[in-house]
Amino acid sequence: MSENAVSQPGRDERLALAFAQLRELLGDRASRGESVRAIHGRDESWHHPQMPDAVVFPQSTAEVSAVARICHQHRLPMIPFGAGSSVEGALIPVQGGVVIDTSQMNQLLAVHPGNFDCVVQPGLQRRALNEQLKDTGLFFTVDPGADATIGGMTSTRASGTNTVRYGTMADAVRGLEVVLADGRIIRTGNRARKSSAGYDLTHLFVGAEGTLGIVTEITLRLYPRPEDVTSATCRFTSLRAAVDTAVAVMQAGIGVARVELLDEVMIDAVNRYSKLDLPLVPHLFFEFHGSPARTREDAGVVEELCADHGGDAFEWSTAPEERARLWRARHDCAYACMAYQRPKRMMTTDVCVPLTDLADCIEAARADAAEAGITAPVLGHVGDGNFHMVLLIDPDDPAEVERAEGVNRRLVERAIACGGTCTGEHGVGLGKREFLRLEHGEALEVMRSIKAALDPLDLMNPGKVLPD
Amino acid sequence: MSENAVSQPGRDERLALAFAQLRELLGDRASRGESVRAIHGRDESWHHPQMPDAVVFPQSTAEVSAVARICHQHRLPMIPFGAGSSVEGALIPVQGGVVIDTSQMNQLLAVHPGNFDCVVQPGLQRRALNEQLKDTGLFFTVDPGADATIGGMTSTRASGTNTVRYGTMADAVRGLEVVLADGRIIRTGNRARKSSAGYDLTHLFVGAEGTLGIVTEITLRLYPRPEDVTSATCRFTSLRAAVDTAVAVMQAGIGVARVELLDEVMIDAVNRYSKLDLPLVPHLFFEFHGSPARTREDAGVVEELCADHGGDAFEWSTAPEERARLWRARHDCAYACMAYQRPKRMMTTDVCVPLTDLADCIEAARADAAEAGITAPVLGHVGDGNFHMVLLIDPDDPAEVERAEGVNRRLVERAIACGGTCTGEHGVGLGKREFLRLEHGEALEVMRSIKAALDPLDLMNPGKVLPD
Repeated sequence: MSENAVSQPGRDERLALAFAQLRELLGDRASRGESVRAIHGRDESWHHPQMPDAVVFPQSTAEVSAVARICHQHRLPMIPFGAGSSVEGALIPVQGGVVIDTSQMNQLLAVHPGNFDCVVQPGLQRRALNEQLKDTGLFFTVDPGADATIGGMTSTRASGTNTVRYGTMADAVRGLEVVLADGRIIRTGNRARKSSAGYDLTHLFVGAEGTLGIVTEITLRLYPRPEDVTSATCRFTSLRAAVDTAVAVMQAGIGVARVELLDEVMIDAVNRYSKLDLPLVPHLFFEFHGSPARTREDAGVVEELCADHGGDAFEWSTAPEERARLWRARHDCAYACMAYQRPKRMMTTDVCVPLTDLADCIEAARADAAEAGITAPVLGHVGDGNFHMVLLIDPDDPAEVERAEGVNRRLVERAIACGGTCTGEHGVGLGKREFLRLEHGEALEVMRSIKAALDPLDLMNPGKVLPD
Repeated sequence: MSENAVSQPGRDERLALAFAQLRELLGDRASRGESVRAIHGRDESWHHPQMPDAVVFPQSTAEVSAVARICHQHRLPMIPFGAGSSVEGALIPVQGGVVIDTSQMNQLLAVHPGNFDCVVQPGLQRRALNEQLKDTGLFFTVDPGADATIGGMTSTRASGTNTVRYGTMADAVRGLEVVLADGRIIRTGNRARKSSAGYDLTHLFVGAEGTLGIVTEITLRLYPRPEDVTSATCRFTSLRAAVDTAVAVMQAGIGVARVELLDEVMIDAVNRYSKLDLPLVPHLFFEFHGSPARTREDAGVVEELCADHGGDAFEWSTAPEERARLWRARHDCAYACMAYQRPKRMMTTDVCVPLTDLADCIEAARADAAEAGITAPVLGHVGDGNFHMVLLIDPDDPAEVERAEGVNRRLVERAIACGGTCTGEHGVGLGKREFLRLEHGEALEVMRSIKAALDPLDLMNPGKVLPD
C-alpha cells in the first residue's frame, strides 16, 4: 500500500466518491444495482461468484480512460469484462471494485482486405466479427468454444480448434490500444507483418488477463477463406491409437486445419447434448482447407495414417450442413459437459505438452480421475498437444473439490515435468495461479516486477494471474 | 544512480577490480588486449566503432551469470556479442564495459524431431545449425543475409527471405534461458506449441537487443524440410509492376515460401559481386515449398499473376545448384552493396509497411535518394511489406551523412504514417533509436518502465534501443 493510505478515506467513502464521478461521466451507464452486479461477478467455472461494487458500460476509449482515472484516484480495483465466458475465474472481482463491461464497445472499426487485417473494439464477439467479414473473402481464425469477445480472447491468449493451422491470439493480434491503470492511453504494434522496433508490448498485454491494462482496440490478422473445406471423422478402439494418429499427422507435416480428439465419455456427453448418435469410442475430427485438389490430397494422406493406426470408418464430407453440425457439436462440448451431470460444475484442466508426451499425459490423467471417482470427459486440440479433462464436481462438496484438485495438480506436474504448461489457452485466472511457481520459478519474480512497474497500486484485476 | 554512487570507487578502479575477478573466473578467456577489444567494438554498419574495456568468452550459463554478478557489483556495462553482423550498431559499446562474446557457447544441445524443436546455445550460427540438423529431416527457417548467431537473431527479432511463409524469430523462439543484470538465471516459455500461463516473457526478451538480459539458451521451433523446392525469377519493366505482382501473390493466398524484390541498381551490384549477368531491370525471385504437385500448382498461379502485371521471362527451376547460386547471391546482397562503391559504408533503411502501401513507399524513397544524390540499391522481402534501401555513404563526409539521414528519416515518417514500422527486422540499435518516439509515443514510457524494472542500474547494453 502507498504511504498515504493512512490518511486516505475509508473504502465506503472512496466508493461513494468514485461512484458519484462515474455517474456524472456515464449517467445510467454506471450502475450499483444488485442484479447487474450479480451478472458481472460470475463466470462459467466452478469458482464461487463474488460481487463487484459497481459496473460501468463505457462506449469509447476516452470513457475507459476517464473511468480508469477515477478508479486510480480512489484506489479502486478495475476488472475488464467481455462475454463472461472465462473458465478460470479470470473476471471474478475477488477484491470488489468496478467492473468495466465492454459490451457497448463492440464495433468493427475498419477492415483492410488488401493487408489482411481489421481493427475492432474489445466487446465485439467472434461470431459477429466473422458475420461482418463475410463479404470480404477473409475470416478471423481463432475459435474457442464460447462466443467470446475479442477483448477477452486477447486477454487470455485464447486459441481454438484451428489454431493448429492458423495460430493463437498471440499470432492473430498485430497491435493494441490499451488504457493503463492511471488512465494513460498507449498503442502497441502496428499494421505491418513484422517489426523489430523496441520491446514487444503487444505480446505482453496479450494474455495478461487485464492485470496490466484494459484493452480498448485490437488490430487483428485475417486469413483468406479457404476455397474448399473438407471434414472427416475417424473412430479408434483405443485412446492411445487416436492420439498417436494425430501426432503422426502433425509429424507428416500436413497442413491440417483442425485435428480434435474426443474420448468416449465426451462422445456420450456430446451425443446427449447435441442429439448425435456417434458410437461410444474415441474419435478424431479433422478438417482440411485449400484448393479442392489439396484438401483431397491431405484427406487421402490422413486416411492412410488413420488406417495404419487401426482407425475405423474414416468418413469425409464436403457438405456444409453436415460439417457445420459436427463442428457446432464440438464447439458446444463445454455446454455438453455442463449438462452431463447437472448441477455439477466444471473444473477444467488445460495442459499443453510436447506432442511426443501427449498420449502418456492423457492416459495418466484419465487413470487418475477414474481412481478419484470423478467423471471426466476428455477433449483435445491434439495437434497442438493441448487437451482438456473436464472434472465434473459439486463446488459445495469439499472432499470432491479436493480430490479433483489433486487430479488437476498431478496432471499439471506431469505436464511441466515434460516441458509443457499448466494452461494452453484458458489462462491463469484464479484457478492456475499456484502452478505458476512450479512452471516459471525465478521468472515469476520478473513478472512481478513488470506488474509493479505498470500497475504499482495493484488496481488492474487484482488477485489474478500472479500467486500471492 | 544509486545512493552509494558517491562512495564508490572511480571507473578505472572498478574496472581493475572487476577484471581481476573476471581473470580469476575465466583465465585467458578474459582479455583486455587491444586487438580483441577492437574486433568487438565494430559491426557491419556505418556507425563509428568504439572500444569496450574488456572482452570475455564464457563457456556456460553459469559463467555468464558469474560475469554478470561481477559487472553488476562493479557497475560496468555488459554487451552480448554474437557474429558481429549488426547493421544498426546494436553491439557497439558506446559506454565501454565488458563485451560478452558467446562464440564458445555454440552447441546444439538437444533435438526433438517428434516435437519439431531443438535447444541451442546463443553462439551457434544459423548455417552450422542447419548443417547439424541435416539428418533429422527438419530445418531452422529464419535466414537473414549474414551467417548470424541464433543469440543475435533472437535479440534483434530477425527475419529472412522465407519469413513470408515460416515467420520471424518471434515465431521461431519457444523458450529462452536468460541471465539478468544481477546474475539471476531465469527460464521463459517451454516446449509446448502454446501457453496462456502468465506474462509472455519470451516475446519480451526476443528483440530486446540485450538491453534486458543476456540470452544463454534458446528453444527453437523447426519445420520439416519440404519434399520439393522450386525457384523462379521474373523480370519487370517497372518497379511498381514488380511490387504490385508480389502483393497480388500474397493476396491470392498462395503459400509462397519466398518472394524477393531486387531493383535494377541492386541487380547491378549483385551481378558484379556474385558474377551473374541478370538484365538490369527490377526482378522478383520466388520459391515454392511442398509436394511436387503443389509447388507446380503454386508456380503456375504465380506465373499467371506475373504475366497479368507485365512480367517477362518467367523462368523456374528445380535444379538445386542453380537455385543455390541464385539464393546465395540474394543472401550476399549486403556484401554486394558494401563492395559496390567501396570504401563507402551502408546506412540501411528497414521499414515494413502494410502491403497496400508498399509500392508508394518504395517509389517515394527512391525518388528521395535520387534527389539527395545518393546511390541506393533496393531489395525487399516484399511479401512481408519490408524493404531495404541501402544508402551508400562516406561516414566521414558530414554533408553526405546528413543528406542520407534525411532520406532515411522521411522514409520512416512515411512508413509510420501508413501504419508501418521504422525497422522490420534489423532492430533499433543506435541507428533507429530516435524514431521510437514517433512510432510508439506514450508506449515508449512503458518500455522505459520495464527497462527500469529489469535493469535498474542500466548496465545491459546501455545506450541502445530506447532514446535518451
